[in-house]
Amino acid sequence: MRHLTSDDIQSLPSRFRAQFINSITGVKSANLIGSVSARGNTNLAIFSSVVHLGSNPALLGFLLRPTTVERHTFNNIKETSAFTINQVQTHFIDKAHQTSAKYNHNISEFEAVGLEEEFLSDCKAPFVKSAPLKIACRYKNEYVIEENGCRLIIGEVTDVFYQKQIQSKDGFLDLTQTDTAGILGSDAYVKIDLLHRYEYAQPDQVLKTK
Amino acid sequence: MRHLTSDDIQSLPSRFRAQFINSITGVKSANLIGSVSARGNTNLAIFSSVVHLGSNPALLGFLLRPTTVERHTFNNIKETSAFTINQVQTHFIDKAHQTSAKYNHNISEFEAVGLEEEFLSDCKAPFVKSAPLKIACRYKNEYVIEENGCRLIIGEVTDVFYQKQIQSKDGFLDLTQTDTAGILGSDAYVKIDLLHRYEYAQPDQVLKTK
Repeated sequence: MRHLTSDDIQSLPSRFRAQFINSITGVKSANLIGSVSARGNTNLAIFSSVVHLGSNPALLGFLLRPTTVERHTFNNIKETSAFTINQVQTHFIDKAHQTSAKYNHNISEFEAVGLEEEFLSDCKAPFVKSAPLKIACRYKNEYVIEENGCRLIIGEVTDVFYQKQIQSKDGFLDLTQTDTAGILGSDAYVKIDLLHRYEYAQPDQVLKTK
Repeated sequence: MRHLTSDDIQSLPSRFRAQFINSITGVKSANLIGSVSARGNTNLAIFSSVVHLGSNPALLGFLLRPTTVERHTFNNIKETSAFTINQVQTHFIDKAHQTSAKYNHNISEFEAVGLEEEFLSDCKAPFVKSAPLKIACRYKNEYVIEENGCRLIIGEVTDVFYQKQIQSKDGFLDLTQTDTAGILGSDAYVKIDLLHRYEYAQPDQVLKTK
């Protein structure tokens, strides 16, 4: 196996290092975050950093880098407190990735990449109409990661829209049935297939599949 | 589509809600975190919350829930400052999931589930010998998420061990070539397959695959 130390990593060319270190954590979720400015300009941006924080209350988080196109998303959320999380499917990964281009503030990525927006319930922020799983969130808080200036944005889940047929009796949503995409590194998109679900693990029992 | 509001979610039975809300963020990474107490007891625990924080310096994070078996991992990291992140492959997802059982503090999950430990470089914490991608980290900081008592643990990458043949010329590691696993919800394991890598997106250009 190849072994790189922290000194080796630090001396890599910066783009090579970014591709490499972006890859090492494993597969990441593929979500489009929808938002809108106080003046009504809608925005859509691909994120691979949406994480589960807790179920009671239902909380999600995502990471914002210090200086990127994602700032439109951040500014909008600060103005309106609302954002949406829309599951990316494998058949529109190209459109999803295209949202990472540096469009001007007054251009909506929905229109630019060809994804239809829709407004649901009381949420001010736009959803991706074709997404099979859509979440409305209200901004709760943010934590600045002092080590590199990233921000962890915390959102409270206010609404979830999903296809009923993918839900198991125990509440689980089998997203493989809706062709959910995943992300490796910063630019690789994957499809996923279910292998097994497992029962709650106990120290003295052989693990069973569900 | 089914629509649940925050009131609907709040009124779900707690296990159903946990399965549901754990599912909605999309696919998650599958990593085993290795650690060791000051007295030398090794520990191994499955985590689906390892996230990329930055490449310069190389920083990772993972989330710890307030009260779970993961506390052994947390206590060990506080004692030794070292931990390892080991990529789960599809052929040992059963052993990986079994580490989530509540073993006593003096029992090593390595032995209990049948994964061989190894020590590499200067890292005090144990690695999973068979993992095709292994990362050594040094504890840097932690952020308590006030909203629910979770902690975001920040680690600095000190060493990376990986199979050279999965690395592209630009630094990217194609983890689909090492049968990396992913996680949906809290107990579902998936395999992943590469669809496309994309070039850097530009506003006025048609997106190209790499």
